[in-house]
Parts: sequence; C-alpha cells; structure tokens
Amino acid sequence: MSAKTLWAGVEAEIDEEIQAFLAGEDVLLDREWLAEDLRASRVHAACLRRAGVLSEEEERRLSEALESLEREWQAGALRLDGRFEDGHSAIEHWLSERLGELGRKIHAGRSRNDQILVATRLWLKARLRALADQCRALADCALSRARQESDWLMPAYTHLQPAVVQTVGHWWAGYAEAFIDDAWRARQTLAYVDANPLGSAAGYGVNLALDRDFATEALGFARLQLNPHYCQLARGKFELAALEALSQALLDLRRMAWDLSLFATREFGFIKLPSRWVTGSSLMPNKRNPDAIELMRASYAVVAGARTEIEAILALPSGYHRDLQGIKAPLVRAFARGLTVLRLLNRLTAELEWDRERLEQAVKDPALGATDRAVALAASGRAFRDAYHEVKAELGAGSFDARASIAARVSLGAPGHLALERLAARLEALGEERCE
Amino acid sequence: MSAKTLWAGVEAEIDEEIQAFLAGEDVLLDREWLAEDLRASRVHAACLRRAGVLSEEEERRLSEALESLEREWQAGALRLDGRFEDGHSAIEHWLSERLGELGRKIHAGRSRNDQILVATRLWLKARLRALADQCRALADCALSRARQESDWLMPAYTHLQPAVVQTVGHWWAGYAEAFIDDAWRARQTLAYVDANPLGSAAGYGVNLALDRDFATEALGFARLQLNPHYCQLARGKFELAALEALSQALLDLRRMAWDLSLFATREFGFIKLPSRWVTGSSLMPNKRNPDAIELMRASYAVVAGARTEIEAILALPSGYHRDLQGIKAPLVRAFARGLTVLRLLNRLTAELEWDRERLEQAVKDPALGATDRAVALAASGRAFRDAYHEVKAELGAGSFDARASIAARVSLGAPGHLALERLAARLEALGEERCE
Amino acid sequence: MSAKTLWAGVEAEIDEEIQAFLAGEDVLLDREWLAEDLRASRVHAACLRRAGVLSEEEERRLSEALESLEREWQAGALRLDGRFEDGHSAIEHWLSERLGELGRKIHAGRSRNDQILVATRLWLKARLRALADQCRALADCALSRARQESDWLMPAYTHLQPAVVQTVGHWWAGYAEAFIDDAWRARQTLAYVDANPLGSAAGYGVNLALDRDFATEALGFARLQLNPHYCQLARGKFELAALEALSQALLDLRRMAWDLSLFATREFGFIKLPSRWVTGSSLMPNKRNPDAIELMRASYAVVAGARTEIEAILALPSGYHRDLQGIKAPLVRAFARGLTVLRLLNRLTAELEWDRERLEQAVKDPALGATDRAVALAASGRAFRDAYHEVKAELGAGSFDARASIAARVSLGAPGHLALERLAARLEALGEERCE
Amino acid sequence: MSAKTLWAGVEAEIDEEIQAFLAGEDVLLDREWLAEDLRASRVHAACLRRAGVLSEEEERRLSEALESLEREWQAGALRLDGRFEDGHSAIEHWLSERLGELGRKIHAGRSRNDQILVATRLWLKARLRALADQCRALADCALSRARQESDWLMPAYTHLQPAVVQTVGHWWAGYAEAFIDDAWRARQTLAYVDANPLGSAAGYGVNLALDRDFATEALGFARLQLNPHYCQLARGKFELAALEALSQALLDLRRMAWDLSLFATREFGFIKLPSRWVTGSSLMPNKRNPDAIELMRASYAVVAGARTEIEAILALPSGYHRDLQGIKAPLVRAFARGLTVLRLLNRLTAELEWDRERLEQAVKDPALGATDRAVALAASGRAFRDAYHEVKAELGAGSFDARASIAARVSLGAPGHLALERLAARLEALGEERCE
Repeated sequence: MSAKTLWAGVEAEIDEEIQAFLAGEDVLLDREWLAEDLRASRVHAACLRRAGVLSEEEERRLSEALESLEREWQAGALRLDGRFEDGHSAIEHWLSERLGELGRKIHAGRSRNDQILVATRLWLKARLRALADQCRALADCALSRARQESDWLMPAYTHLQPAVVQTVGHWWAGYAEAFIDDAWRARQTLAYVDANPLGSAAGYGVNLALDRDFATEALGFARLQLNPHYCQLARGKFELAALEALSQALLDLRRMAWDLSLFATREFGFIKLPSRWVTGSSLMPNKRNPDAIELMRASYAVVAGARTEIEAILALPSGYHRDLQGIKAPLVRAFARGLTVLRLLNRLTAELEWDRERLEQAVKDPALGATDRAVALAASGRAFRDAYHEVKAELGAGSFDARASIAARVSLGAPGHLALERLAARLEALGEERCE
Repeated sequence: MSAKTLWAGVEAEIDEEIQAFLAGEDVLLDREWLAEDLRASRVHAACLRRAGVLSEEEERRLSEALESLEREWQAGALRLDGRFEDGHSAIEHWLSERLGELGRKIHAGRSRNDQILVATRLWLKARLRALADQCRALADCALSRARQESDWLMPAYTHLQPAVVQTVGHWWAGYAEAFIDDAWRARQTLAYVDANPLGSAAGYGVNLALDRDFATEALGFARLQLNPHYCQLARGKFELAALEALSQALLDLRRMAWDLSLFATREFGFIKLPSRWVTGSSLMPNKRNPDAIELMRASYAVVAGARTEIEAILALPSGYHRDLQGIKAPLVRAFARGLTVLRLLNRLTAELEWDRERLEQAVKDPALGATDRAVALAASGRAFRDAYHEVKAELGAGSFDARASIAARVSLGAPGHLALERLAARLEALGEERCE
Repeated sequence: MSAKTLWAGVEAEIDEEIQAFLAGEDVLLDREWLAEDLRASRVHAACLRRAGVLSEEEERRLSEALESLEREWQAGALRLDGRFEDGHSAIEHWLSERLGELGRKIHAGRSRNDQILVATRLWLKARLRALADQCRALADCALSRARQESDWLMPAYTHLQPAVVQTVGHWWAGYAEAFIDDAWRARQTLAYVDANPLGSAAGYGVNLALDRDFATEALGFARLQLNPHYCQLARGKFELAALEALSQALLDLRRMAWDLSLFATREFGFIKLPSRWVTGSSLMPNKRNPDAIELMRASYAVVAGARTEIEAILALPSGYHRDLQGIKAPLVRAFARGLTVLRLLNRLTAELEWDRERLEQAVKDPALGATDRAVALAASGRAFRDAYHEVKAELGAGSFDARASIAARVSLGAPGHLALERLAARLEALGEERCE
Repeated sequence: MSAKTLWAGVEAEIDEEIQAFLAGEDVLLDREWLAEDLRASRVHAACLRRAGVLSEEEERRLSEALESLEREWQAGALRLDGRFEDGHSAIEHWLSERLGELGRKIHAGRSRNDQILVATRLWLKARLRALADQCRALADCALSRARQESDWLMPAYTHLQPAVVQTVGHWWAGYAEAFIDDAWRARQTLAYVDANPLGSAAGYGVNLALDRDFATEALGFARLQLNPHYCQLARGKFELAALEALSQALLDLRRMAWDLSLFATREFGFIKLPSRWVTGSSLMPNKRNPDAIELMRASYAVVAGARTEIEAILALPSGYHRDLQGIKAPLVRAFARGLTVLRLLNRLTAELEWDRERLEQAVKDPALGATDRAVALAASGRAFRDAYHEVKAELGAGSFDARASIAARVSLGAPGHLALERLAARLEALGEERCE
C-alpha cells in the first residue's frame, strides 16, 4: 500500500514501484526535524490568525494539538513512517484526525517548500550550535593539557623528519587554537544561516498578509529571509556553508588523529592508549589496534562525500525541483558522524597518555639544535645564510641541551613562550563550557 | 641548468629530471604573491631590528631594497622564473646581489614556511575583499533592475513547470538578496582568515624575541595567529574556507546562468542577448549561441575541482609536508576564474534585455491563478485542504487577471510586496560600491 | 550491552560509548553480503580440509551447517544485528553454537581481512552483472523505440538553441548506443575485479598450504589475486572502479533525465507523462510535477558523493586500517540507488509518450535548413566557408522541407541513415535480455 | 585585438572583455592535440573526396598542406595563440592562407564539435597507451626487486601496528601485481574509448555520404562511434573513464609513496634515499627532506580534482554546450601530472636502497610469531579460537625465528611462496617493455 498524499484526488493512478522510488527514505529523514516542523507549524498558525484566516479559538486548538504532538513525538508515542509521504503530510494528517476540518486549515498559505526550509533551518542552527560547543570543549581540554604538559619535551617534525625540539604543550596549544577558530567558524556560519524562510510558500509568496517579522521573532531567528525566490535559492547553499564549518573542524580532527596514529606506532611510541580504546584481531593474537583513532581519521571522508553529493544536486535553474530532496540524507549523515566523532575526540584528548621516556629519548639528537645555533650566530652578527652553511658543515658537533633550546625559543607562541593566556582569553570570549 | 637553492652546498648531487619535478610550476605561481612577499619581508626586517639582529641602518637599507624590488616588480622589470627554486629564494638572491652580506641576513629567524603563509594570507585577504566587492556590485545592479522591473509579469516555476505568476522584479530581488548574503559570507571569511602567521618560522617558533604583535599591526592583520604549530595546521584549511566563500557566490551565479540559458531558448524566449554576448557556429550559419552564459555556468566546476584537489592533499599528519605546495595552483585557478566570471555577470546583469511580449504571453494561463483562488477560499473560512481539492477539480475555469494576482500577493517579500528598501538597507550596511 | 567479539579475553575493559562508535552501522551493512560470506566460508572449510587442518567429516559438518545458515538467512530466520561485532563474528558464533569446538575451528588460516574482501568481491561481481543487464535492457528498449519512431521529426539543439532537424529515432539511438557502451564498461569492470582474495589472511598469507587455486575455481573467480599485500591494496581501489562503471551509466541517465525534464516543460512540450509518473503540490492545485524524472537526474550525485567518500578514505599507507571499513556504506548506497534508478528509467523509456503535434510544430523554422543548404552548396563546388557566409546572409529565406532534410542526412549514423542494425548487432554480442 | 573567428561576418559587434572570457586558455590547450587535429583533417579531406565534394587533385593538395603544417608544428615553426579562436580555426585559416579558396573548402561536412572529439580521442588513446606502458615498466621494475630481495626480512603491519614478519620481496610483489592490474585497466579503457566520432558533425550528422568506416580505419580506430547524438553524449564521459584508469594507478602510487614516506622517517628508518632525491630547508641546516616522495603522494589530488571538475560540468541536457570546453584543462593537467609522476616513481623504484640492519632489528619481537603459533596449533588439531586465546595469554613467550616464520608461510602468494613467475607471466601477456 502506498503513502497517503495531500494532493492526490480519488482518481489517482497508483503505481507501487514508482511510489516507492518517489518516497525513498524521505519520510524517515523527516524524523530528524519533526519537532522543528511542529514548532514552526505553531508559529504558522499564529500567523494565520494574525492574517484573519483563523480565529483565536482555532489557533489555540491547533497550537495545543501541535504541542501535544510534539510531546508525544518526544516521548516516542508517534510513529512517522512509510504510511505518509513525508513529515509535513503526517502533521496535516494527524491534525485532521484529531481536529477534523480545523486540521485541514493548517496548510493555508504555506507550502511544503517553506515548511521543509524552516524545519531544516532550525535543525541546522541547533547543529551549528552543537558544533561550536564541541569545538570549544575540545579547545578547552587541549588547553588544559597544554598547561599541564607545557615543558614536556617532544621532537618536532617537518616532512615527517625531525626538525627541532618542541614541547607537548606546544603541540596541544596548536590544536587548542585550531578548535577555537573552528568554534568561531561554526558561530559565523550560524549567524550566516540564521534567517527565517517561513512565509515564502512555494518560492513566490502568497496572497495573505502573513506577518513574517512576527514569525521571525517567534522562532528566534536573527533576521528574515525576505525574498521567496531567494529562500529557494538558499536550499542547499546554506547546507553547504554548514558542512564547510563542520569540515573545518574535521580537517583539524583528521590531522590530530593522523598524529596520534603515528605516535601510537611501535616505532614512534609516543602515546599509550588505554585498553578501552584498543581492539584486537580475529587472526593475530598479538594485535592492539587503535581502531577508534582510525575511524576518527576516516570521518572527514563522510563530510567530504556529503558536500560532493549536495554540490552535484545543485546544478539546476532556480526554483524548487525534486532533486533538492537529495540534500537531506547527506546533510544528516555528515552532522551525525561529525558531532559524534568530535565528542569522542574530546574524551580521547582527556584520556590519552604520553610515554615520556620515549619522548625524552627522541630529542637527544644534537642535530635538533642546528637551527638554534645558526639563528644564534645570526643574532650575534653573522649573515644568517653564512651561519646556516657553517652549521650545516659540522652537523651533530657539540653537545645539545633540549631544555635550553626550548627556553630560548621565545618568539611569541613558540614552545618557550606559549602565551596560553591569550588562547584562554579568546576561548573565554566565545563562551563558557568547560573540560572536566 | 637547475634552479639556485638556498640550502644546497657545493657538493650537491644534481639530477635534472628530479629537479624539474620538484620545481613544478611553483616558482611561476609565486608571481601571484611576490608583492605580498616583499611587503612581509620588510616587516620581517623591522622585527629583526627590534630583536637586535639588524642595526637601524641595516634595516633601512634592506627596507629600501625591498621597496625598490616591489616597484620594479610592479613595473615588470623583474623576472621570476625557473632560475629560482621559488619566489622566496629569489628575494634572498636579489637582496644578496644588491646588498652583499646584508642580503644574506634577511632570512634569520624565518622559514619559507611562514613566508609563504604570510604572503598567501595577504593575497587571500585581497581576494576575499574583491569577492565581497563583486558580490555587492552585483547585488546593487540586481536591485536596480528589480526596482525598474518590479511590475513586469513573468511566470514562476517549480519543477520547471508553471506554478503561479511572479514579476521580473521578484526574480531580480532574489538574486540581489543572494549576492548580499554572498558578500557577507566573503566578509565573514575575511575576518576568519585575518590572522598573522609571520614569525612562526617552520612551525615551531625561533630563538629570537620577534615582536609578532608589531608585525601583526604593521601588516594590517586583525589578529595574531599565535601558535606556530597551528599556523602550519591552517595551511589549506583557510584556503578551503576562502574557496567555500567563493563557491557560495558561484552557486548563485550558476543558478542564474542556468535560468538565463533556459530563458534564452527559443521555447522560453524571455530574454534577448545583445550580439556581443553571442557566438556563431563553424558549421551552422543559423546559430546564435549564448556561449558566455554557458561558460559562466561551467565556472562553478573550477571551484569545486579546486576544493577537491586541496582537500585530497590535506589528508596528512600535522607539520609541513611538501604535499602542501599543491594547494597553490588550484587556489589561484579558482579565484582567477571566480572573480572574472562574477565581474562578467555584473555586466550581463546590466545589459540583458527582456522580451516583454513573450513574458506577457507566458502568464495568460488561468491555471496560474489556481493557488490564489484556493488560498482566497481559505481566507474566507473554507478549510484549505477542501478549497484545494475544489479548485483542483475545476482547473482553468474562470478568468485570470495576472496583474491582480501580483497585487494580492502581499506576504512580506512576495511579488506584491517586494520591500526592496530592506535589501537596500542591508546592502548599504555592507559598504557603498555602486552599479552605474 | 556491547557486542560479542572474537578477540576480547575476559579481562577486556568495556566502554559503551567507544564500543558504539567502533561498531557503527558495520554489522548492519554486513547483511548485504552475509550470503556471500557464508558461501566463501564453505570454500574456506574445503581448503582447510585439503591443507589437513580439518578431517573430511569435519568439513562435511561445517559445510552443512553453513548451507543451513544460508538457507535460514535467505528465509529471514537469522538475525544479524548489534549483538555481534560484524557478520564474520556472527558466523563463527553461530557455528560454535551449533557445532561446539568444531565451530571454533573455522577461522584457522583466515582473517576478517580476507573474509570481507572475498564477500564484498562476490557481491561486487553480482552488482556489476546486474548493472550490465540493466544497461542492456535499457539499450534494447531505446533501440525498439528508435526503430518505431525513426521518422518522427524533432528539433535538434546545440547550446539549447535550435540547430537542425533530427528524428526521435536518432535521439533514442544515441541513448541506445550509450547504454550499450555502459553495459560493456560494466563487463570490463567485472573482468577487472574478478580476482579471488580468499587465502590472503591479514595481508601477509598464512603458514598453511591453502589451495588457493582450488578456492578460486570453487568460488567462480576468473583469476587468483595472488599477492596478499596486493589483496589489501585493492581494497577500495576495486570498489572505485566499480563505482566508475556505475557512474558511466548514470552520466547517460542524468543527461537523459535532463532532456526529459526539459521536454516536459510547458514551453518545449515534447513529451506527455502518464499520470502515475506525476505528482502534485501541497499548496498549488494546478501542478503536475515530474518528480520521478528529477529524482533520476539527482541520482548521479549519490554515486559522485560515494566516490569522493571512498577516495578520501584511501589516503593511507599500505596494509589494513580500520578507516577502510568506511568503504562499505557509500558502496552499498551508490549501487542500491544506481540499480534502482536504471530499472525505473527502463520503465519510463517504455512508457513515455511524445506529443507529435508539438514536435512537428517545432521543426517548421526554415533556419533549421541553413546548414543543409550550405553543405549542399559545398557539395556542388562552392568553398564551404563562402557558402556558409552566403547562407548566413539570407537566413530564413526560401521554403524548408524538414522531411527532405532528414532524408538527405545520410552520413553514417545520421537521422537519414541510422544503421540501427549495427547497434542491434553490438547489443546482441553482449547478451540476450530483451525489452518487453 | 580579438581572435579571428570562422563565423563572424564583418558586422560583428566586438567586445574585448567578453571575447577574452570566451577565448580563455582554449586555444593554448589546443596545442596539446593540434597534430591529431591535422591528422584527422587529412582523413576528413579524403572522406570529402570519396563523397565527391573534393576532386582527387584538391584532396592531394589539402593533404600535402596538412602534412606540411604537421611537420612545421612538430618543428616548432607554427605559432598557435590568441590570434585564433581555437586550433580548429587556425587550421582553416592556415589552409586558406596557403591554398586560397581550396582552404575554405576543408570544413564542408564537419563541425568543430566532431573535430575536437576526434582530436582529443586520438590524444586520449595515446595517453592511455602511455599509461599502460608506464604501469608495465613499473611492475617490471618492482618484480625485479621482488626477485632480488625475496628473502630480506621486514615487519608487516596492519593499523600501522606490527603484525607478523614479511619480506621486502613480498612488499614489492604486491605493488608489481597492483601495477599489472593498472596496466590492464588502462588497456581496457583504451579499448572502451577506441571509437571514431569523426563524421558526426555537430551531433546530428550531415547531408553528405561520408564514408565513416573508411575514416575509422584510416585513423586506426577499433570501431565507429555510430550515432552522432551519442558522439556528443560521450564528451566528458570517455574523459572520465580515462581519468579513472589514471586514478587507479595513482591510488597505488599514493599508497606506495605513503609507505616510503613512513619508511624514510628516522623512527622507521627502513630506506635510505640517495641525495639527489632529497632537499634541504631554508632555515634548518640539519634537514634532509623527501620532497619528491611527498609530491608523488600529492599527485592523486590533481587527478581527483580534475574528475570533480569534469563531473560538475556534465550536469546538462544532451547536445553540445560551451560548458563542455571546460573539460580540456583538467584533462590535460591530470594526464601531464599523472604520467610524469609514474615515470619518476619508476626511477625511484629502481634507485631506493633499504637499510637491512634496521629491517632485521625490526623483526626481532617474538610477538610477530604469535599468529604462526596459533595457526600451527590449529593445524595440529586445536580449535583455532582456543589456540588463539592460548597464545594471546602468553604473548612474547618463547623464542622467535623470523626466517623460519617466512619459510613456513606457504599459502599461495605469501612471503614463503611468492610465485613471482605467475606475475611475470601476466606481465608478459600484457607486452614487453622492460626495466633496465
């Protein structure tokens, strides 16, 4: 049996295969933002009352029914599935079931086009807020460790080749600043998409004096998305902006996971993973594998794939096309994975342990002091390029004190002058969530 | 003969094929930001003086030589090519040629790693500013036309099927709002990347008390990118953010070009292209082809390809790797194409002409009034769903006055209530560049 | 409660959140190829018997149990879910449950690494076979219609601008040849991936004389994938090749869907869609929307997204990494969507109807004869370029007989000389599935 | 001054900015396949003669002029640049310059649409042949080293964690088999695209009896691409197939480069790079950086970016659109980089040296024998899962003879039974190019 639609008359020719294809997983994806859809429906009812389409009493009854539906949904007592074409149809169906004719009034002056726009916009805002929060929490955690491990020595690499000595604190502080920026980007993006499309109908407005400014405020949007044609043009566009914000954070997460994967090798041996973070092999009794780190590293791919998928859909003239429905699945998939993996990295950031002995061992090579020496010569008057070639000619000569090297590395932000208070101040300015 | 390098001693084993591969087009790409590199080098010299590495006199001479190089470069009197490993090597080479030992002092306390970061960062800021300007100019142009053509009738589509009547002004206003948002996104992104990496050396700082706060101010950055490790982590990350801002604008451009391509067909026939916008065929004497519009439409692909290319490069542990050099080419390619095509769309926006007769013809179908009628019934008390099925049952019945339909479409932003002054105010708030 | 693993001893530290992340949807995805896994397990048991690890009796009992599991699975009597780490663990678990110690013998000499490789390889072969079949069926259908409609006139476009006259048969024949090639590509790709990885264990072989040639034949593979290290390197690589074959077909499908979307507009009006292919609007009573065509058009995006996702994962050193698990979901998603949409296009190809009147109307413009005239002049001795400019100067002059234009268009494959028997012969050579 | 076009009459309205945009780098890209274009033009002239449009004498003179142009082009005596709209226009221009009216006859019955198709098709075939050759040479080289180093011990990894012992020969043999498959894929793809589009004109054939079978044979194509509509549909589609073949090889190259990057770290230390493969730092005198390996690793990104760019362009209805011109640049870019980097990897494969001492040191851990022991217990009758847990409980106990472990690893293809003769036979079957 095929889904109940809002538009089909009794005469409709039904074909199971085509219906199944059209439905796809659409109605299941609408579970993601059904609460938002119900909330926006209440505001739409209020707009209808203000436009004289509903009486006060009618609005009150619709509003109560919608609140009740939201409660039932949160409690797991409502079922949204293939019996309905989509979440929007389900809402009208439920209202009609409960309120009769009054339920059949709710859709005056709106289209599923602005309904899905407003529901996903509210959902997107919540996701971007969660993203910002996760990034701040991560930054805070990384900053704590940077403070605690500010003088633990560690080799520094370029091209994966040893370059100079650094500190564990310097490594952590880099990721702290990264996730502070990522939180900021999430906030910027939240501001960018914080525009209300409700009341734009199918992309061309409607012959009712809907009070869209009221709706904007009632739904907590920062601004009105004014032009209905633009509301449609923003479909997918805002989602891509949101995925970009997500991918900024996941770029940093990917590099951090790669670092940890490398540090966890027998050969580097810089970190020790608690056994709950490690898995075994079905064949090889000796394996302790950092699967969790690898799955983190692989998570960027989900976001990149989602972006490609949405981008490919958007190669269209303006106005709504059913193609745009394809935006939902990759969007949900990417945020689900991204937020999960950031939360997990937060835990790992708190829980991983360094092998200080291996770290100390790894900074003994006097070649790690070569750059310092060349710069010191330059500071005492030699032309740097001449000093460079002089030091290069006698590499490894002389003794090397890694701790002194750190102490002398005083350019702002460097291991000898981390200036963590500056990062803390930026983080503070972004909000207050803390790392336990 | 292979390129002069900063690092090779006399003993270096040279292999032409490997050298050619390593060089690639790197040095040619450095032409893009040589001016920025020279400018940042002046500030670095000032930092070296403040750190006591250079005397005042030395700084003055280096600074004058760098200014002179910048003038010569702008005048086309300097040649940057395969004789050098890259732009950075060329600068040290030119300085050494002109100032002898003093020239060999410039590289104290810096690495090509922070040198390329600061040069491309300055370049990126300029590009994002240009992007914001282009988008504002486009929005302004679209807004002018929206004003002038606010009551020209035009069919409105969903699924490329006629839906209701709209106005040409409503169509323009949608793109005006789109490009206002795009300008805003460019500005946000400019703020996001506006951080000074100079003084981070190879990613681990340096044993000199470089006054990085001074450098930040001297180069006009909004903030210091504090942690050297993070400076490296931001390589590619900020470029992807910038490309995202560019792609937001190009998403809108692509849809507008698609609209115009469709409107230019014989079958739609809504626009007339001046002959300078049209090309012919080598075989078919009758062709008038809208090539320029099609090349605009295709431009998004260049940006999407560039993003994929950079994303693929970044799957690495932290720290510098030579892989990262691969970021330059797609970055330059995407911005060159993107800014060109936006400027051209600006012209087309000003120059294209509508075929009002065809537009009027296209809104005569009474079915375009069906939605209005159903909503009007709902406004007078019928349940909307019942009104919908009633109207559906007698589609096309009755007369249809398209102009009356527009007049009644008064929801905020709709064709009957464009509220262009709101868009103008947002645009105003973003800056003042105007469409002539 | 967390999943049963093969590797954890009793002491294992369990963490619900980490376990949930590690599990992901992995075990659910393994439902796709559980039958293949069971089948390959039977062959592995036979190899163990041949290597002297199992007795004949033991092999017989394992084999019977595996066959029984496969029957139960097909009948829906087995449940594969989060109680197990993955499908492989479930198989060993079920065998151990039913056969006791003998069940715990099955995994000797194999790893989940070669187990998933062989199961997905068999699955991939079946999908590529289905792809080839769908493409052949589509080509056959298109060819039938090309035959029937070989002389129905239709305008021909370049740049979406009318160019010359063609026939509906010529348009169909183009897609017929396209899908013949696509079937061929699917076959090539099937041959390319038709290599047996079973017996490669974790990527380094095993200390048992496994008769891998026997296994290759028993599983119906065309060749042995010899080197275990390469078996691991092929993970993702073969999947990308398969997705490319799929995307070749979907590129053609996307362009065909775009054609149909355009032809279905009121303005072109070339096709009529049966009502079962059309949907309505929740707001606009007058809409008849070609949603199915649009969802077809959007399907390429799913395959493109899947490719990006897998490509991004593969940026790794050799050997197995848990990242590779991320290949499963996009692979399954892309083939599910691709095969569904090809089947649906097959139906649409059979069912859509042309509006011959609109088509005839659309080829009346004498400009469509300009190219013919220029070429005819050239054939009678004029320099073509001179003829071109002459015709261009008097465009639209004279009468135009579209049918005569077709009759004269006799270059091989052109509308006047379709040579459909050649396409039929190529299709024949590929196999025999027919269009009813 | 703007470019000479074939189509503009004297009246043409010229706009420098638009012309510059339309031209883009198109004419420069046409340098890539100008020789192919000239060659195909000779065959077109022969077809015109066979169709009675040219006399034998005329064909002879055109043919000679075209041969002469090809010679001059190869010798660097012809200049193809912005004076022409594209390479096709240049050819007609040169012929007209040299042969007067006869030159203006060449374009009868062809369009730039089939001209670019045939030229790029020939070019593509040559590139795929070169790709196959490079892959075979690489496989041959890897096979040689596998033979020589078949018993050099080396640790084997999964999850970057030590798993068992393998041999250097086993590692090489994996890549040998990989590149054999890649050569095969290149060959398959060559066969797939080996179809002649010449004679399809603008996508709708022409009113001349062009002998396209003759042209197919004369140009060395394996088959005729029959339907002109399909010839246009194949634009971009075949290019994507070719890029997929290229990316198969580059996937393997990327993983090999990653292995080498890892093996070149101080911590792994398995390989020693000759100094010609190594670069230095501008700041750090102690650096020896494997830049060449890193640039190899980054090369996949260029191919991935090119695919995305072309895919994004192809979201169009059928028929030619100017968008399609955008296929050229990424195609050329990807093959240039891909073929260069494969050739270089070939050299590196021949030249890199192992540090046998470090390798021997790295396989001493008795845990590397755990899997062998568990399997051996299983071979002597224990249930494997029980043996696994028994060995796991006493990890590291007992002595470990890595060489004996290799000797016992006799499953087909495993380090103890490499069966290199099978790979050699497959390589032989593909052709004979050798590694010196």
